[in-house]
Amino acid sequence: MKLYEALAQEIEDMVARRMLLPGERLPSVRQQHARRGASPGTVFQAYYLLEARGVIESRPRSGYYVAQARPPAAPASLPAALSTPQPDPEPSRPDGAPRSVEVSGLVFGVLEAARARRAVPFGSAFPSPELFPLPKLARALAASMRRLDPWSTVADLGAGNGELRRQIALRYQLDGAAVAAQDIVVTNGALEALNLCLQAVARPGDTVLVESPSFYAALQALERLQLKAVEVATHPREGMELGALAEALDRHRPAACWLMTSFQNPLGSLMPEEKKQALVALLAARGVPLIEDDVYGELYFGARRPALAKRYDAPAAQGLVLHCSSFSKCLAPGFRVGWAAPGRYAQAVERLKLSTSLAAAMPSQLALAGYLAQGGYDRHLRQLRAALKAQQAQMLAALGEHFPAGTRVTHPQGGYFLWVALPDGVDALALHAAALERGISIAPGPMFSAKREFRNYLRLNYGHPWTAEHEAAIATLGQMIGEMAGGGAPAGYAARCAPR
Amino acid sequence: MKLYEALAQEIEDMVARRMLLPGERLPSVRQQHARRGASPGTVFQAYYLLEARGVIESRPRSGYYVAQARPPAAPASLPAALSTPQPDPEPSRPDGAPRSVEVSGLVFGVLEAARARRAVPFGSAFPSPELFPLPKLARALAASMRRLDPWSTVADLGAGNGELRRQIALRYQLDGAAVAAQDIVVTNGALEALNLCLQAVARPGDTVLVESPSFYAALQALERLQLKAVEVATHPREGMELGALAEALDRHRPAACWLMTSFQNPLGSLMPEEKKQALVALLAARGVPLIEDDVYGELYFGARRPALAKRYDAPAAQGLVLHCSSFSKCLAPGFRVGWAAPGRYAQAVERLKLSTSLAAAMPSQLALAGYLAQGGYDRHLRQLRAALKAQQAQMLAALGEHFPAGTRVTHPQGGYFLWVALPDGVDALALHAAALERGISIAPGPMFSAKREFRNYLRLNYGHPWTAEHEAAIATLGQMIGEMAGGGAPAGYAARCAPR
Repeated sequence: MKLYEALAQEIEDMVARRMLLPGERLPSVRQQHARRGASPGTVFQAYYLLEARGVIESRPRSGYYVAQARPPAAPASLPAALSTPQPDPEPSRPDGAPRSVEVSGLVFGVLEAARARRAVPFGSAFPSPELFPLPKLARALAASMRRLDPWSTVADLGAGNGELRRQIALRYQLDGAAVAAQDIVVTNGALEALNLCLQAVARPGDTVLVESPSFYAALQALERLQLKAVEVATHPREGMELGALAEALDRHRPAACWLMTSFQNPLGSLMPEEKKQALVALLAARGVPLIEDDVYGELYFGARRPALAKRYDAPAAQGLVLHCSSFSKCLAPGFRVGWAAPGRYAQAVERLKLSTSLAAAMPSQLALAGYLAQGGYDRHLRQLRAALKAQQAQMLAALGEHFPAGTRVTHPQGGYFLWVALPDGVDALALHAAALERGISIAPGPMFSAKREFRNYLRLNYGHPWTAEHEAAIATLGQMIGEMAGGGAPAGYAARCAPR
Repeated sequence: MKLYEALAQEIEDMVARRMLLPGERLPSVRQQHARRGASPGTVFQAYYLLEARGVIESRPRSGYYVAQARPPAAPASLPAALSTPQPDPEPSRPDGAPRSVEVSGLVFGVLEAARARRAVPFGSAFPSPELFPLPKLARALAASMRRLDPWSTVADLGAGNGELRRQIALRYQLDGAAVAAQDIVVTNGALEALNLCLQAVARPGDTVLVESPSFYAALQALERLQLKAVEVATHPREGMELGALAEALDRHRPAACWLMTSFQNPLGSLMPEEKKQALVALLAARGVPLIEDDVYGELYFGARRPALAKRYDAPAAQGLVLHCSSFSKCLAPGFRVGWAAPGRYAQAVERLKLSTSLAAAMPSQLALAGYLAQGGYDRHLRQLRAALKAQQAQMLAALGEHFPAGTRVTHPQGGYFLWVALPDGVDALALHAAALERGISIAPGPMFSAKREFRNYLRLNYGHPWTAEHEAAIATLGQMIGEMAGGGAPAGYAARCAPR
């Protein structure tokens, strides 16, 4: 038995013997370290393992508490206000078995249906393009093309435009991560970065650990590259559970771990800074590369940008963190400019880029380099974050008013997705089809699981300026869900709570 | 024994018994068809098989002739004018064994070395960017971005911008190929198109037939996708030999055949129209997809654009031709806009595109759509072709003057590459290293073979306006080659021929 398992067992026994009572605060990691001499990593792993088992629970900025005995689900007929207002969904409990992925048919069907009509875009993967400074980017593009050195069309092949890479490296430096410009590979969006990083670290047949639920495009990448997915328990607020991760690492000897550390798609979970540090240490100790997808990291609602796991990729971590991001979600949709900072795999990723698609489009790269150099990006980001935060409040209020009792929903600290657990018995795929008939797109839960779990879950996009049409669409969805749940009148599940 | 094999055997016997004499013209395909009732496909296959065996040879626009007994190679000490001026290299004779590909290390080494200094760009894969209408493209880009509908950044994801696809479909129609706009998938250059098409038709472990020599990026794609390459004998003027192809098809049951039908890289070979037709029929009869890479097709020096094999992808051919091309070599380097017209695989390729890199860059697509709609593309192409044709003559003249006897070189009817066979004993890799020391890049032959054959071959790029520096570089190379060949003074191998 490992140290962290022994510690977890000890605490679980104390809970069973009621030496620790439900709701009681556990000693902090620092206390455990100071008093027992247990390393912070061991304590974290033990606590995450206990969290995965449902023995304890974490509360943001507060610590760990012995879990309450789980209350039975509130029946739909209860007055809505008696249920907890907008509770979080439960942490996921995947079975942990490795499996080949076959979600593509479903995903493409959903995406094509959503594009086929002018639907209310709750199923969209993007924020509204109207939130981006497209005219300013167009001017930066025109200016950079006028100054174009024809030879740059050849010289910038492969890793990308030097000035753009320098601008990206400057932002890493602000974020406290040591990434040199020459270690950055510009890609056709973060999706290509993810694909190249996966190819750099894994071979067909290998296993990759992912979150549960997980972004469907990552599952599709695994499917196409013939990699096996092991879905790891993930907390809707704090991201992948490290105890479950540690177990999966030992059991499956994966080629890599892929996750979204900040504002995960679809959960919106934000892994706390200490947990990111423990994550990097845990993987580094086993020599497993971490592909950190961070495309939503700039879309935070708090006081400062969430830390990058990459930040802890110190010499001790051996350059094992492959950090991926893009400008597609926060500045320049459609420009298809992303990048990877692949640590020790930088050369491998650059070569894969060269032989996969040679280079990212030069006009897009030049436009972004020009825009970043000229300043104004941070001002744009502040406006974008404020808009998304306001839109989240509007959607949460609408959900509280119109969705039936038994609904649970995340309250992310950034990004533009809500993850909604519908009452038992509601089939998200059926709802998806019926909603499309009414001109409303949604992203049904099974898109986000290799095993097509989350049958009663939805991802909703609040990245579009809120309108009366959106409000009406939420009301329509709420009514449909209420009918599918077999309840009576679809009372708002939080109708008596003050709207936010 | 198949019909074509029987016919081939019959003719070979006639040659052996001297009923057909060296230099004698064979009956035309039409005559064989009219008189024997043999189908044109059978006759073509028989003739290509005989050509592959060296029994007969084809002469452009003339027909097939019984081969002359091969003369011994002219010794280097012979007066240069006695050797045939600038003879073609021999057709390739690969061993036909399937093998895993491992050229990437060599290729990246060569490409990186060439980029590392301001070398004379004979090893470059691109024409000079100064030959392209970059200012006009910049204006088209600025204009299209001013008119941008923000929603196009979302709506054009996947298969690409509708207007651009319509413009591309219009050019297919001019070329006599039936390709609808909705069957075109816009990609990040032809290289991504090739990669996606390979993934649509082949699985790891499958075999793919390629030319010998073959474009190194295709070999790298096979390597990355864990496909096996079978190199098929290829004629330096007329492309892959169909007899050898037929044999390889029967022997290896490949998942696909990948080739460049017009101005192949590195040979510059142009498959004659009838041969393209026979190629499509041959593959269709066996249900094997043809990935036709046609990035150089617009760079012809003759009166009209060479036919596309895709043109013969009639219902009979079952949509098995996946035609790939781009604007990178003829209009807009660095914009990274290519496309695939994948026939029956259109949906599969579109889905792979969506899950690999989502979409091509929107600014690049809009700029090209605007440029094509406004006209002027064909005028630009005429200027570009005239420049390349003149540069080819200059490089051929310089080679004739400065390269030693025993050199053979192709005389392509388009494109911007020469394929040069050096005298026996000259090691192209050693020459590459030594030439780089002198500030000259070349592309050594082994880059173009899974087996690293063609050790005494080079690919030379004449896509750059000819200068005194280029002339001097050819003289330097000629001197180095002469010394490596162990000959005496490096007499120009065609010194007494009038320069072209």
